[in-house]
Amino acid sequence: MSQPEAQTAAILGGGVIGGGWAARFLLSGWNVNVFDPDPEAERKLSEVLANARRSLPGLYENDLPEEGRLVFCSTLEEAVCDARWIQESVPERLELKQAVLADVQKYCATDAIMASSTSGFKPSQLQEGLNKPEQLIVAHPFNPVYLLPLIELVGDSETSKTAAELLRSIGMFPLLVRKEIDAHIADRFLEAVWREGLWLIKDGIATTQEIDDAIRYGFGLRWAQMGLFETYRVAGGEAGMAHFIAQFGPALEWPWTKLMDVPELTDELVADIAAQSDEQSGQYSIRQLERIRDDNLVGIMRALKQRNWGAGEVLNHQDARLKRRLAKVAGGIEDEVKAEPVVTIERAIPVDWTDYNGHMNESRYGQVFSDAADAIMELIGADQGYIAGGLSYFTVENRIRYIDEAVAGDRIYVKSQVLMGEGKKLKVLHEMYHRDGRLLATDEQMMLHVSLETRKSCPPDGIVLENTEKLAKAHSGLAVPDYVLS
Amino acid sequence: MSQPEAQTAAILGGGVIGGGWAARFLLSGWNVNVFDPDPEAERKLSEVLANARRSLPGLYENDLPEEGRLVFCSTLEEAVCDARWIQESVPERLELKQAVLADVQKYCATDAIMASSTSGFKPSQLQEGLNKPEQLIVAHPFNPVYLLPLIELVGDSETSKTAAELLRSIGMFPLLVRKEIDAHIADRFLEAVWREGLWLIKDGIATTQEIDDAIRYGFGLRWAQMGLFETYRVAGGEAGMAHFIAQFGPALEWPWTKLMDVPELTDELVADIAAQSDEQSGQYSIRQLERIRDDNLVGIMRALKQRNWGAGEVLNHQDARLKRRLAKVAGGIEDEVKAEPVVTIERAIPVDWTDYNGHMNESRYGQVFSDAADAIMELIGADQGYIAGGLSYFTVENRIRYIDEAVAGDRIYVKSQVLMGEGKKLKVLHEMYHRDGRLLATDEQMMLHVSLETRKSCPPDGIVLENTEKLAKAHSGLAVPDYVLS
Repeated sequence: MSQPEAQTAAILGGGVIGGGWAARFLLSGWNVNVFDPDPEAERKLSEVLANARRSLPGLYENDLPEEGRLVFCSTLEEAVCDARWIQESVPERLELKQAVLADVQKYCATDAIMASSTSGFKPSQLQEGLNKPEQLIVAHPFNPVYLLPLIELVGDSETSKTAAELLRSIGMFPLLVRKEIDAHIADRFLEAVWREGLWLIKDGIATTQEIDDAIRYGFGLRWAQMGLFETYRVAGGEAGMAHFIAQFGPALEWPWTKLMDVPELTDELVADIAAQSDEQSGQYSIRQLERIRDDNLVGIMRALKQRNWGAGEVLNHQDARLKRRLAKVAGGIEDEVKAEPVVTIERAIPVDWTDYNGHMNESRYGQVFSDAADAIMELIGADQGYIAGGLSYFTVENRIRYIDEAVAGDRIYVKSQVLMGEGKKLKVLHEMYHRDGRLLATDEQMMLHVSLETRKSCPPDGIVLENTEKLAKAHSGLAVPDYVLS
Repeated sequence: MSQPEAQTAAILGGGVIGGGWAARFLLSGWNVNVFDPDPEAERKLSEVLANARRSLPGLYENDLPEEGRLVFCSTLEEAVCDARWIQESVPERLELKQAVLADVQKYCATDAIMASSTSGFKPSQLQEGLNKPEQLIVAHPFNPVYLLPLIELVGDSETSKTAAELLRSIGMFPLLVRKEIDAHIADRFLEAVWREGLWLIKDGIATTQEIDDAIRYGFGLRWAQMGLFETYRVAGGEAGMAHFIAQFGPALEWPWTKLMDVPELTDELVADIAAQSDEQSGQYSIRQLERIRDDNLVGIMRALKQRNWGAGEVLNHQDARLKRRLAKVAGGIEDEVKAEPVVTIERAIPVDWTDYNGHMNESRYGQVFSDAADAIMELIGADQGYIAGGLSYFTVENRIRYIDEAVAGDRIYVKSQVLMGEGKKLKVLHEMYHRDGRLLATDEQMMLHVSLETRKSCPPDGIVLENTEKLAKAHSGLAVPDYVLS
């Protein structure tokens, strides 16, 4: 697999956030230089990286590029000197950040992007004392950085624009914050909720468990796909937002006056919260909770992917990029079709495809073969545009043989060979392999070309028929395995 | 299908919230009496009901009971007189609610549960003037009520306990709020966020779109599965909650002082919000947005179901209830096994199973047959406990023929016939039917009994082998369709 020359990201501070950045860049094919004086940095980062390797690749229906090279640097200069992107994630102390950033600017390229992960500081505060302040922006991520798409970008609009493009290329969703304020946008909400939560605990109204349940069984589900305003727009009904606000605005105002005070974070309150949290989640280790969270997030984002909505739309955009790059079948049929099976699928097994036996569920083998058939359809010109025009292929029979197992994270590929392509009939043999060479399953698939209007079979359009016959002819000399039923 | 005698719920006020309650009860097999003097009530409720019928049944892997009877009543007395549950969802005005509730208590059974959907009032306020105040509780739902599981229960602990049990039986998650306060728990957070959102818009920091994006691409995804505190517990790492608060508490405190004021809801601000919302979502009608939201929620909740976490765990509990009730295969093999195919699946097609052709994707046919095989396994005693003991069945071959289409919401069933059951071999023929009698697909499935330790085939345990042979013998006299390959 040929790759464009890898770029380098420098990660300053390798904790949970820095480690997440490192994983996101590495798994997107970037080389990563880490600088962190903490003697435990390498161990900590390797744990974040293990989580990311387990969950991130399975978000996509296409293989990610080969991982970049990870280097732990002993000096800041070494880390940043050849970096295209420099991400500062050191502790949230202004003087410390300012000192690190001033150092970075001594050694980095003048066109490198310098970004801070700060959740609270404004770019103008961080830029104090920098020779080239516009080189530094805030790029505020959300934990786990290797899964959640949101990045708040604050600062110079030109630098932010370049940064946004680059972040999109590694699958993220940059939100350009137009005016700098303390805590940007999202954390304003988190703080408002946090403060309210502290009050509820302090006043003995609710425990951490009860508060979390009030979120995750109700509005938390809504907010994973629409935010506050779109949700209320729908609730307001046909009359729209102005109606909603008019109707509910006054009611929402009542308790406000009681929410104004800030509860003091006494030792007692901290101890109460910690005890309630132990009671709520203490049966899991942090490591276990991380995996539960990541598996949930993968499942949720992949569900949204199928709806092409919100975070799922971001995943689909990234898949389109990954596919273009690999370009195995996207180009359609060349005049010279090779006499060899087509590689129709190259992907990782997502965590949501496994079952109680601990391996990929049989129905997901079927899904991979269904995707392989889509790739063949695309190759012969029966692509999304063609389907939108009212023609498609329906599968009438699959004979799937399950040879070996695959588990979450495994990388697989499928080779597809046309056994018959005449008129409205298209018969394809798919063989699924593990990257280590093991044959995992085979599928003999019979498809019929149909009209989506009449839902009955009909001959394909000219170019599709021509391509089908061309491909069938090219594959006609290939050996047909013994196991294939005539 | 025999059903226990249906209970009756009275729905007072049939708007978005009341309609959602009506749909939840109806689709759970309750009879529903609606009282709403609005001449448009019937039309409005039918729209909510249409959305619910489209989305709710597909949350489960088992059929819901038959729908109850829906009656629009011309008087409040008629609506509540025979009701087990009375849900008040009239507009959010205290005197109105008090008057309606006093009326209800004149006519309802003394052991009926009276519940108010109020998002702001305390039970003690609503109980003023009631003869039997403890009969009334707050049962505060979240829109869409037919999908979101959370109900905040506030009020008398005995009444709440009975109410909680009843709500669980219709698939909801009751959260018992121990102390009454304005706006209960969840809406405290919604109000805090709402107020902060108003500030951001008023100050020109962010638009409704930018605010929604800041939520749904970041923490909204986290909150669909863990809440505020469990999320922070994970972020805090091994050191736990006390560490997290110590580390981030001070930083979170800084901007608080600026968040204390309440923005005035001027006409100008309302107009700004409405215009931004039109810009953001105006390309969709409210009806379209409702369906997008519902499809997303179904996808998210079903993803969590697979992880058995949060809202998904609630769905699994409900499926266990639905299954026990239908009890087709749960009881294991009786001594007298009938010489007829076993009904292994009865369910609705969820929206997340359809593809670009507008029908159930081929891989989901495979999933239904995989679930049918699980039911057969359970019948012969190869259930979850057996699998936990290290033994299971793996499928080695499926031959699936696709005969006809099914779309989201269709109700289907599968009949399964054992073709061979000898030693470690188990061959089953599954036939999938639409409820209207159409044959949709067939599957000849060959399974092998395996050790999950060695991942190799081995003979089943005694009782499983015995049951397999018993079932195979009972089915040995059944006709085998011509299409079956030997």
